[in-house]
Amino acid sequence: MSQGLLVVLSGPSGVGKGTVCRRLLEICPRLKLSISMTTRPPRSGEREGVDYYFTSASRFQELIRADAFLEWAEVYGHYYGTPTEPVNRVLDQGVNLLLEIDIAGARQVRQRLEQAVSIFLAPPSREILQERINGRGSEDAEAIRRRLAAARREMEAYREYDYLVINDRVEKAAACLAAIIKAEKCKISRGARPTGWEVNRV
Amino acid sequence: MSQGLLVVLSGPSGVGKGTVCRRLLEICPRLKLSISMTTRPPRSGEREGVDYYFTSASRFQELIRADAFLEWAEVYGHYYGTPTEPVNRVLDQGVNLLLEIDIAGARQVRQRLEQAVSIFLAPPSREILQERINGRGSEDAEAIRRRLAAARREMEAYREYDYLVINDRVEKAAACLAAIIKAEKCKISRGARPTGWEVNRV
Repeated sequence: MSQGLLVVLSGPSGVGKGTVCRRLLEICPRLKLSISMTTRPPRSGEREGVDYYFTSASRFQELIRADAFLEWAEVYGHYYGTPTEPVNRVLDQGVNLLLEIDIAGARQVRQRLEQAVSIFLAPPSREILQERINGRGSEDAEAIRRRLAAARREMEAYREYDYLVINDRVEKAAACLAAIIKAEKCKISRGARPTGWEVNRV
Repeated sequence: MSQGLLVVLSGPSGVGKGTVCRRLLEICPRLKLSISMTTRPPRSGEREGVDYYFTSASRFQELIRADAFLEWAEVYGHYYGTPTEPVNRVLDQGVNLLLEIDIAGARQVRQRLEQAVSIFLAPPSREILQERINGRGSEDAEAIRRRLAAARREMEAYREYDYLVINDRVEKAAACLAAIIKAEKCKISRGARPTGWEVNRV
């Protein structure tokens, strides 16, 4: 059985990673979403083990010291991270795993797991990103201002990624992500091999 | 405007490259099929400028001497080749071009155009390839024997390619090819860039 594919989806704050991920998971039912761990309080409607594993700052720091994270970051005063062990377990089962994480987290994953496929989700324009961030409505003016400033810096990071997908329409962006996963599974450098043929004897 | 993608589809004799290509061109209407030049006589139903450009051996040899081919090969006593100039013209217009060629031809294209995407189409098994070659019915026993021997050698070449697609069902294989093209167009190493955002000032 071949190793599962680790797909890292990132992009600036407010670009719509969550919405695109949900649609992608509908298109690719065998793709599994990695659940992050965080110390930020649950937002309305968020469920433990579905949206995040919610934990305390002291427990999170303990796991950092034990080097138990594939990536972690502190963002706006809260910790976010991906524990390594469940990721490896899923990949070893040959299951493709989707990580929806921020720019700093994606950097760490690429450093630790070279075979990860990294995809940068970009807004169609700065104006549209600004509208989306304003429209979220769950934060105060200062938080919005910080998000916008961060997004401008984060956009520069796209060059570090393997793929760029523009989120102009959710359906189109999700189809691009699905195509990238399908193509990566056909890569000979990733172990794609002919079936029912003795070609490995050389 | 970004450069078009050159997609090289190859695989052993009898694998069904032509059928898969026709289906792919229906799925991707903006993909253009490169027409090869050949010195073999037209088969029943083949049309000049649609299936091939048919030409004489002396004219073909003249073009070889003028280095006018992106790739050429002599197969079963006939010349087959892809003139370079029309390929470059189409790619410069930003159009994606599909080359359906044999193993020897694909090797030359990769040497001359590093940016080509190469895809190896493989049969699901040796037995199925044998059935397909037998079933073609347009050739004598000796030609079939030669094709089978060639196919066995050709299968070993899959390692030289970027992608492997198994042709178990035409529809599935064509969908894989379409996904590979879509994914390649999203590659940052191929020039995919954010739109409506000043990210290139650095």
